Amino acid sequence: MLLDSAIMLLGLEAAAVSVLLVGAALGALLSAVASGCDVCRRGHGPAKSDPAPSPLGALWAATPGRAVPSPAGRAAEPGCVYLVGAGLGDADLLTVRALRLIQTADVVLFDRLISAEIRSLAAPGAEVHIARKVPGKADAAQAELNALGARAAQAGRSVVRVKIGDPLLFARGGEEICVYRGLGIEPVLVPGLSSALVAPLLAKIPVTHRGVANQLLIATGRDRGGRLPDLPAYSPSRTLVLLMAVGRLGTLFEGALAPLGFPASTPLAVIEDASLPTERQTVTTVAEVAAMHAARPFKAPAVVVIGRVVGALADAAVAAEARMLGPAPESLLRV
Amino acid sequence: MLLDSAIMLLGLEAAAVSVLLVGAALGALLSAVASGCDVCRRGHGPAKSDPAPSPLGALWAATPGRAVPSPAGRAAEPGCVYLVGAGLGDADLLTVRALRLIQTADVVLFDRLISAEIRSLAAPGAEVHIARKVPGKADAAQAELNALGARAAQAGRSVVRVKIGDPLLFARGGEEICVYRGLGIEPVLVPGLSSALVAPLLAKIPVTHRGVANQLLIATGRDRGGRLPDLPAYSPSRTLVLLMAVGRLGTLFEGALAPLGFPASTPLAVIEDASLPTERQTVTTVAEVAAMHAARPFKAPAVVVIGRVVGALADAAVAAEARMLGPAPESLLRV
Repeated sequence: MLLDSAIMLLGLEAAAVSVLLVGAALGALLSAVASGCDVCRRGHGPAKSDPAPSPLGALWAATPGRAVPSPAGRAAEPGCVYLVGAGLGDADLLTVRALRLIQTADVVLFDRLISAEIRSLAAPGAEVHIARKVPGKADAAQAELNALGARAAQAGRSVVRVKIGDPLLFARGGEEICVYRGLGIEPVLVPGLSSALVAPLLAKIPVTHRGVANQLLIATGRDRGGRLPDLPAYSPSRTLVLLMAVGRLGTLFEGALAPLGFPASTPLAVIEDASLPTERQTVTTVAEVAAMHAARPFKAPAVVVIGRVVGALADAAVAAEARMLGPAPESLLRV
Repeated sequence: MLLDSAIMLLGLEAAAVSVLLVGAALGALLSAVASGCDVCRRGHGPAKSDPAPSPLGALWAATPGRAVPSPAGRAAEPGCVYLVGAGLGDADLLTVRALRLIQTADVVLFDRLISAEIRSLAAPGAEVHIARKVPGKADAAQAELNALGARAAQAGRSVVRVKIGDPLLFARGGEEICVYRGLGIEPVLVPGLSSALVAPLLAKIPVTHRGVANQLLIATGRDRGGRLPDLPAYSPSRTLVLLMAVGRLGTLFEGALAPLGFPASTPLAVIEDASLPTERQTVTTVAEVAAMHAARPFKAPAVVVIGRVVGALADAAVAAEARMLGPAPESLLRV
């Protein structure tokens, strides 16, 4: 019973748990200093000069009629830990580097929200663990993944830790760097697309647009203690993107934005399930979103975009100005 | 002579210019409404159910011992325009979708700063154009690329417009959407990594970090008229990332940040040539960067990161707190 509770708490898949419990005591491993990880300590990414092409490199080389501009780098190196951003969950939106690392790692540690499609990219013989970060248990699941990663790297295996989005934007990536450094392992960072930029893009909302918005503020809907972070006063030229803010939509305007000077008519868009088949885009205003949320609650994961850029491209005046920004090409070609 | 001037102005490669001048008058094309672009008008991304796999899809399928989780979508569709983000220039940091679209398009329109490595990915038979946006000529080069893209799409060819970074963050992507819509063409958007997030990541600076910074403001060093945008007052919990700000470093603190309440000791990092072999990372303070810039000027392209997150991971107290955020794994495993 206690074992069951521990398994629930750790949020590991059954197969992973069996691997875990067979292993040596983790405490001893955590107190040991890593060895044999000189490659990672230098903090480089995968080298480009590897004479032995990775599987993807070989595949590129096999493209008919095509020189291979890049050998696509090395496979995941033994004894290294990679913190890899996976973007929004669509395998098509992985970077080439992330794809290759996932395909070649000995041990792959996935965030809970990583799609089955991406999880299936791990090599058939790889050890795969999935964090199930449920509310209130995130720290425990995080600590567990860190311990698994450290143990594997110290045993000379290549470890790829796959995180949703960008590893260092609201993703605890900095904390993971600190943990691994404390164990003598310097992780290699690999960027991934962030929903903060991709969700607006998929809704064709330019987060900046000449004459409309010249800056972008990204924050979360909840900070420590559940409060909104300390946001600056309204500026018409600033776009605000809120992540993890669905639970705040009922009181967002009256409780936070109105005191900051946001006009009630400020456009607001909610993009739920960005990039998934269930994606839904809603455009309204900061004052009206509460009633919409009460009538039919928006669901996480969602990205909230606030500012004049929402709907700017549908504005005839903005569109006309954009079309006129460059001189007509025929005038350029007059000779 | 006038023709030479026009060619200089348009900033086209010689080969591209010959193609351009052979074509029909562009004015007539620009006034026509596009036809045959129903696929794009629906605004979808490449479909995943295409029975004919793209080259990359076929390559994935050829990986030994591996099921193909995704057919990797369609190739670029005829008569469509794709606005594709290319990230920082390293082909390894392209998304899988962007790679496939570049490889399969009939016409590829590259930003000037796109690396030779990525440019070489276009199919051998593709028509390739490169914008040379020199200062003062950006609008003309932009208009030219738009006209070339519109003409090709209207002729039923697939067009991939490859932009540095993310297509909608300080990239005029919204303007390009308006231009194409004005011609009856609805572009398909494909995200790319932004240097605003990737440059700090490569320097291992977490743009947000629990207990240090809970929000991120992204702006440019120059707005219309060359001024800084209207930034909010200093907040210790907000990270500021400035793009295109190298020319501002000499007066950034005294002219802009000090009046906003930034302490002189606020950490500042400059990351030049992020992701390239010539990448250089410098850590200093907002007050000291001017003297450093005077002694040895920083060079564009560079990303400037300002706030307590710069150096936070090197701070022993921050690191210790991060390591302690999760309970020790051995306590979780006690059964």
